[in-house]
Amino acid sequence: MSDSFFEPVSGFDLPRFAGVPTFMRLPHVPLDDPRLAEVQVGLIGTPWDSGTTNRPGPRHGPRQLRDMSTMIRAQNGATLVRPFEMVNCADLGDVAPNPADLMASMDRITAFYDEILAAGIVPLTGGGDHLCSLPILRALGRNTPLGMIHFDSHTDLFDSYFGGTKFTHGTPFRRAIEEGLLDPQKVIQIGIRGTAYDSEDRDFAAAVGVTIIPIEEFHARGPEDVMVQARELVGETPTYVSYDIDFVDPAFAPGTGTPEVGGPNSYQAMLVARLLKGVNIVGADLVEVSPPFDAAGGTAYLGVSIMFEMLCNIATNIAGK
Amino acid sequence: MSDSFFEPVSGFDLPRFAGVPTFMRLPHVPLDDPRLAEVQVGLIGTPWDSGTTNRPGPRHGPRQLRDMSTMIRAQNGATLVRPFEMVNCADLGDVAPNPADLMASMDRITAFYDEILAAGIVPLTGGGDHLCSLPILRALGRNTPLGMIHFDSHTDLFDSYFGGTKFTHGTPFRRAIEEGLLDPQKVIQIGIRGTAYDSEDRDFAAAVGVTIIPIEEFHARGPEDVMVQARELVGETPTYVSYDIDFVDPAFAPGTGTPEVGGPNSYQAMLVARLLKGVNIVGADLVEVSPPFDAAGGTAYLGVSIMFEMLCNIATNIAGK
Amino acid sequence: MSDSFFEPVSGFDLPRFAGVPTFMRLPHVPLDDPRLAEVQVGLIGTPWDSGTTNRPGPRHGPRQLRDMSTMIRAQNGATLVRPFEMVNCADLGDVAPNPADLMASMDRITAFYDEILAAGIVPLTGGGDHLCSLPILRALGRNTPLGMIHFDSHTDLFDSYFGGTKFTHGTPFRRAIEEGLLDPQKVIQIGIRGTAYDSEDRDFAAAVGVTIIPIEEFHARGPEDVMVQARELVGETPTYVSYDIDFVDPAFAPGTGTPEVGGPNSYQAMLVARLLKGVNIVGADLVEVSPPFDAAGGTAYLGVSIMFEMLCNIATNIAGK
Amino acid sequence: MSDSFFEPVSGFDLPRFAGVPTFMRLPHVPLDDPRLAEVQVGLIGTPWDSGTTNRPGPRHGPRQLRDMSTMIRAQNGATLVRPFEMVNCADLGDVAPNPADLMASMDRITAFYDEILAAGIVPLTGGGDHLCSLPILRALGRNTPLGMIHFDSHTDLFDSYFGGTKFTHGTPFRRAIEEGLLDPQKVIQIGIRGTAYDSEDRDFAAAVGVTIIPIEEFHARGPEDVMVQARELVGETPTYVSYDIDFVDPAFAPGTGTPEVGGPNSYQAMLVARLLKGVNIVGADLVEVSPPFDAAGGTAYLGVSIMFEMLCNIATNIAGK
Amino acid sequence: MSDSFFEPVSGFDLPRFAGVPTFMRLPHVPLDDPRLAEVQVGLIGTPWDSGTTNRPGPRHGPRQLRDMSTMIRAQNGATLVRPFEMVNCADLGDVAPNPADLMASMDRITAFYDEILAAGIVPLTGGGDHLCSLPILRALGRNTPLGMIHFDSHTDLFDSYFGGTKFTHGTPFRRAIEEGLLDPQKVIQIGIRGTAYDSEDRDFAAAVGVTIIPIEEFHARGPEDVMVQARELVGETPTYVSYDIDFVDPAFAPGTGTPEVGGPNSYQAMLVARLLKGVNIVGADLVEVSPPFDAAGGTAYLGVSIMFEMLCNIATNIAGK
Amino acid sequence: MSDSFFEPVSGFDLPRFAGVPTFMRLPHVPLDDPRLAEVQVGLIGTPWDSGTTNRPGPRHGPRQLRDMSTMIRAQNGATLVRPFEMVNCADLGDVAPNPADLMASMDRITAFYDEILAAGIVPLTGGGDHLCSLPILRALGRNTPLGMIHFDSHTDLFDSYFGGTKFTHGTPFRRAIEEGLLDPQKVIQIGIRGTAYDSEDRDFAAAVGVTIIPIEEFHARGPEDVMVQARELVGETPTYVSYDIDFVDPAFAPGTGTPEVGGPNSYQAMLVARLLKGVNIVGADLVEVSPPFDAAGGTAYLGVSIMFEMLCNIATNIAGK
Repeated sequence: MSDSFFEPVSGFDLPRFAGVPTFMRLPHVPLDDPRLAEVQVGLIGTPWDSGTTNRPGPRHGPRQLRDMSTMIRAQNGATLVRPFEMVNCADLGDVAPNPADLMASMDRITAFYDEILAAGIVPLTGGGDHLCSLPILRALGRNTPLGMIHFDSHTDLFDSYFGGTKFTHGTPFRRAIEEGLLDPQKVIQIGIRGTAYDSEDRDFAAAVGVTIIPIEEFHARGPEDVMVQARELVGETPTYVSYDIDFVDPAFAPGTGTPEVGGPNSYQAMLVARLLKGVNIVGADLVEVSPPFDAAGGTAYLGVSIMFEMLCNIATNIAGK
Repeated sequence: MSDSFFEPVSGFDLPRFAGVPTFMRLPHVPLDDPRLAEVQVGLIGTPWDSGTTNRPGPRHGPRQLRDMSTMIRAQNGATLVRPFEMVNCADLGDVAPNPADLMASMDRITAFYDEILAAGIVPLTGGGDHLCSLPILRALGRNTPLGMIHFDSHTDLFDSYFGGTKFTHGTPFRRAIEEGLLDPQKVIQIGIRGTAYDSEDRDFAAAVGVTIIPIEEFHARGPEDVMVQARELVGETPTYVSYDIDFVDPAFAPGTGTPEVGGPNSYQAMLVARLLKGVNIVGADLVEVSPPFDAAGGTAYLGVSIMFEMLCNIATNIAGK
Repeated sequence: MSDSFFEPVSGFDLPRFAGVPTFMRLPHVPLDDPRLAEVQVGLIGTPWDSGTTNRPGPRHGPRQLRDMSTMIRAQNGATLVRPFEMVNCADLGDVAPNPADLMASMDRITAFYDEILAAGIVPLTGGGDHLCSLPILRALGRNTPLGMIHFDSHTDLFDSYFGGTKFTHGTPFRRAIEEGLLDPQKVIQIGIRGTAYDSEDRDFAAAVGVTIIPIEEFHARGPEDVMVQARELVGETPTYVSYDIDFVDPAFAPGTGTPEVGGPNSYQAMLVARLLKGVNIVGADLVEVSPPFDAAGGTAYLGVSIMFEMLCNIATNIAGK
Repeated sequence: MSDSFFEPVSGFDLPRFAGVPTFMRLPHVPLDDPRLAEVQVGLIGTPWDSGTTNRPGPRHGPRQLRDMSTMIRAQNGATLVRPFEMVNCADLGDVAPNPADLMASMDRITAFYDEILAAGIVPLTGGGDHLCSLPILRALGRNTPLGMIHFDSHTDLFDSYFGGTKFTHGTPFRRAIEEGLLDPQKVIQIGIRGTAYDSEDRDFAAAVGVTIIPIEEFHARGPEDVMVQARELVGETPTYVSYDIDFVDPAFAPGTGTPEVGGPNSYQAMLVARLLKGVNIVGADLVEVSPPFDAAGGTAYLGVSIMFEMLCNIATNIAGK
Repeated sequence: MSDSFFEPVSGFDLPRFAGVPTFMRLPHVPLDDPRLAEVQVGLIGTPWDSGTTNRPGPRHGPRQLRDMSTMIRAQNGATLVRPFEMVNCADLGDVAPNPADLMASMDRITAFYDEILAAGIVPLTGGGDHLCSLPILRALGRNTPLGMIHFDSHTDLFDSYFGGTKFTHGTPFRRAIEEGLLDPQKVIQIGIRGTAYDSEDRDFAAAVGVTIIPIEEFHARGPEDVMVQARELVGETPTYVSYDIDFVDPAFAPGTGTPEVGGPNSYQAMLVARLLKGVNIVGADLVEVSPPFDAAGGTAYLGVSIMFEMLCNIATNIAGK
Repeated sequence: MSDSFFEPVSGFDLPRFAGVPTFMRLPHVPLDDPRLAEVQVGLIGTPWDSGTTNRPGPRHGPRQLRDMSTMIRAQNGATLVRPFEMVNCADLGDVAPNPADLMASMDRITAFYDEILAAGIVPLTGGGDHLCSLPILRALGRNTPLGMIHFDSHTDLFDSYFGGTKFTHGTPFRRAIEEGLLDPQKVIQIGIRGTAYDSEDRDFAAAVGVTIIPIEEFHARGPEDVMVQARELVGETPTYVSYDIDFVDPAFAPGTGTPEVGGPNSYQAMLVARLLKGVNIVGADLVEVSPPFDAAGGTAYLGVSIMFEMLCNIATNIAGK
């Protein structure tokens, strides 16, 4: 049971368009807040996009995700789960990046998550670009390599860009595997598609044992079947879930920097998150929402709808322990 | 056979971007027009959104629906029905609401529809928010409770909002059932989804016998199968069709105030309206199109495409009598 | 005094966002309407842009002008003139162009205006691109060359485009002068600016006696002083007023195909129309509003605000006779 | 001197696009917060637009104003005033309206401001539509009629709408004068323009002694001269400042429901607020920002820039006492 | 093997947002360039929309297609084909239309393609409206009637518009069949839907032997099965592929002038182009992308993604010979 | 006299919406092109925004500037200067940045400009954020400190950001003065305004002798008078012109990352560039155009209009030598 302090403001008390917009209308509990110790699931923004190699904007993602998240109510329409009554949730605020210093920003992110983990909080992150996942994994996977279920149109397993640049939003999981933060045998990447410069990423995946589900296979098998495989692959392993919004077709999620045509629809996009049920999630993110490319906010609204599905599964796990 | 006065202007005579935009380029026949008595199907706007609890805008719906409706031609592409040749159709104009007086506006709407019904006209309404359906039903269902086929992501069966407010766009069908305007045993709600504050609406539905088809069931069974059930449920009963555009996925219909992710696509959205064939439709509406959230008008264009499918079925009914 | 039939619907009776949108909420009186003979000032749309050499869209202008014109109320805020009480005004609908046949469309426009003139109506036109002015002038200036006060960033006095094409939106007034529809000594062009291919248009103007007020001179002298000159130039001559919305700076009027930076602001844009007071206006147009380049409609709203200023002067003239 | 708790987050510590967006990045201090008593200037949102008679949306104003306000830094560029160092400022959150009950919402607003006044806080409000000013004035002007400097394109002095409706955004100051909340002899309205149904509002103003500066006079005299008159008129009287964003020309502030062409530019818009220096401001508002009509947020950014100018003057007053 | 001169600029050398935007970052090789003779596949723009009967804009299509095409990389994600390494590809620039002279523009297009064909280049065109296909076919089909696989929501087989106009974007294939450029027995039209004025086009198709796959059939059978039929129909016949972007549902492709609700999704849209494998393609086009109706460019991005699928098949054909 | 190879494509030969968009429709002459040696004025893009501390996007600036620049014709409307006939102009393409390596990108920019200077070309740059000016100045000012006329709302003279970061778009001219690239006594900054964290930049300016014209002074004195001072200050000194588009009011130039309300209008924005006549310009830039914040492109169109004014002055200088 959660403490009522940690429940969202109801739309019946304060209409959903009103109020200071925190994630899902939860209380804002900064790291120095005395009640931090009571938080079980922390929603965090990583407003940073210095790893972006093409169209920028995800630094504005957390702000817009918070804004649209005030549309989310208390109960899951499909599963009837009521996560905010099950565990203490809070908006922990944003990590402060240095937009002009990539390496320093990664260190700041890792430090922030170290504090959260020390407090026993499961982090649910709204990005930022996909490079954000690397410094988060440096905190979460420091001691033991994690499994990962990864929804994306890109593998993000490239070695380098622009003649040797090692840290971009196309390389985080190559680095994470090299650094021992992820167990490649327990990593599955779902939805991969789009044109490529070459197959270097897929060759690496094959070499280290990462499982790739291309979009053609996803469409042929359907989300339920693919998610059975994903759950079986990670089993009981502590697992990170990384969800790049460009997994979804750009008609449903135009607000992203590197869209790839031909992805899942919004129902499938939510369903795969719902089908994470039972996975031992130690952290999750939803990244690459880029508000300048979708001022109307539909992408962010889909993003927070997915985050809510993740949250329901995380809360169910915690409450069931 | 219709009178040629009641046929739309052809795009070959006046291009579709030209002319004063009435619904489907039909003649504008106000209530005081001497030819009103000849009208069989009346297209009406209810530009009113005082029942909206979240993002406003449907008061602008009729204007944009009319604008986009000039894209509609004479013949249904799938069924080859030519409704304007079958029955006399006209644009009856808009009901005049009082945006600052909710109760008075409902009375004005009911009075308008009383006049139409007295003239023997079947009303096809472009909203307006969903509270518009209640004063319409007060005219149509005054003598006998109606059946209803209801497409929506929300049940609109809640009891009250904001601590006791009885009339919002989330409560019209609760009121309509309480007032005896609808026969709950003959009501089916299709597409229900999204987060909720609680299950109070579904509990009420279960208690009075309203049939709910959640979106998961809709996606699993498909539109054809669900519509067989809907047609069987209402049988020969005089039936109202209420179509909230937020039934459709927000990628296809972003211009609405309370979108819920994961709905049907546009093909399914039109198909369910086409599959109303044979239903004894005594009135229909298409509501919750909110132009400020879709300036490009794609939502309204889908909306009028759905209205045209409804119109084809209504005209077929009348012509077949 | 006007007949009450010809007065606009009041926003107190029907809110301004409601109703079938005619120009300024006036009655729609097509050419075959028996009450046409009573109309004194006719508002007409010419939804045609086949003369456009660059970015298209003005064919959609009349629709959007009508839509935004429902914001206009009964009384001029600056002069307190109430035109609808002074003369019978009506929306005469749109001329039907053939978008794929330029020459035929011009003939259709001229024929439409011939009918209007035969009925003794002063036409106030919403375009359409600037080539629309030529077929209108062929009706109005058939018997005697007219004076013209022309607001624009371009002279539209070029001889031909694309190697000999004589009829584009850059040539109407060259043709009109050649055809004897305008008296060049009584023509003044205000606001001319922007880059050019050459000075051929200005050389022609100088040769035939057209007065040009470049934007630098307009800004230096101010609108009042320039309009004194304009009024003096045309004196009592029957005069056409042609107002290209690209006269105004694109920050105030982005919705146009050939914007030129550095124009007047919106206050000046309305003021010059107000300062037409006393000019013997036999017809006027407001052209080149291109809705695809300003979906928000601010350009059209400015356009109809200018049309209302013109209308007040036309009505004052008629009422004073 | 302010307490550092009440200073905004610096953009050098947390970039301006990051963090939970409160007004000007100030601490969020709800009414039940123990530090409320220390607040000297409170920024408040009134997300309510039930008084809107035309295009809705200001209910979304406070959210977007907060969002754009994170662009504001610590020091006024023109006057070098640093308000946050001079007085304790805080974001007090939003009043909770009932969107479906106009009268109840007004009572809720008055009650909220009663609490603030009891705590000795000067309120600076971001609206909401202009009807919000009435319930605020019911708190501030309860004991003694206030002076008012009012920037707007409309007088908002009408008696009623839609056949007798007394409470709309076109009537607040008529009501406030009738209720004795304002001293009409100390009220000045600046920027009045646009079409009107009639002169009933101006006749009332003349009858009770309200001073009106039409836009023509404003443009002729210039902002400095007009503001000398405004300051002299109110003198030492406790004065409310009400700033409707539609005072500004719609090219600079498109995001509003009832724009009127031909207003001041953005420099003048800020200058008049700066020239409130020395006025005995007991409360101020910035209303009618309607995000659905300006998704890009330029209107809100101008709005908060004006609020910052007001704040500098309020802080200077308090610090000087 | 291609010559390296004809390979695209890599995003690793010059980021994809940088550089002068040619089609797919290929070298710009105008018709008078000495290396023209080496080109095997030429990408060409036909920026012309004079055949448009409703909403204009495709004249801007080639510009936006080029812009978005810089997102395309070297390798097909599904088939791993690397077309630029297989054949020499180049951007041949745009045909210069005369926007004010329809017949002259058609002649200019035919002349341009005559030159290309003389150089042995397979043309892949980005339109322009669908009338562009006719002058292209006049070059390609001059000697022998071609087969055609045609993706569209309209048949474009009408006889005339507006009382006798023979050349619009609704008539090109009627003309092409009449002129003997296409063998109707080898023509298949896929995706036909939407309202119509009458069945004249379908009657013509039936009379001459054109195969039509309505959208209902497409959705029922699925893209793979339909494409088997298409490939079998054309067999080894030299075949033109004409792809109107309005084949796709408007949620995925809003930027077009005559959208029809209920079409394929983006995955199917690309899949049908991929399934052209083995067809003897002598030329292909992607038409009716209208940037003014999709400023965000998602339609153009889908368009070039489809063009890339076509290109892969064309390159495979050539390389396999 | 220029060589005809270097003249823009005329809109009479190829309409302005057609063709591969180079700057002002000039030939694309990359650095390795044999005709580079003949170029006198080179237009260059620096698509890079890694120095941006707030809202990103200027990396997309050169693409959109090129697109809108195709609207520019051959002759200056105010001065009648025809620059392309006076000197050889060309589009030299874009510098290739590394978006993930700030220091390397600066080196790449400097190297590019070193090559251009070695070829005797005067560079006219379209940015890119304002940090781009620093590596350009490292090439231009290497041997002798330059004068600078700087239009901006910010001084860009700050020492560091985010606790010590020395290279951002807020610091380039501090660095340039420290590095001896600029002579601070010959630097004038015009239009400075907006809120600030402190006065550190102005204190530095005062200490080293930089002249600042705040916006209040600009509005009071007018552009002509201020430009007299600017021309006198730099005299015959080789001078760089740096023009940040946020100098202009955001209503005229919304597409920028750090807008400040209250700036000059578009006429003044062009006029100050025109009034650079006679200044010994050795290079110039127009920076901070951010397309994601102005998809309609009005900001970029104003930007290239300003660049054309600069180009006219540069060409006049060269031709006069």
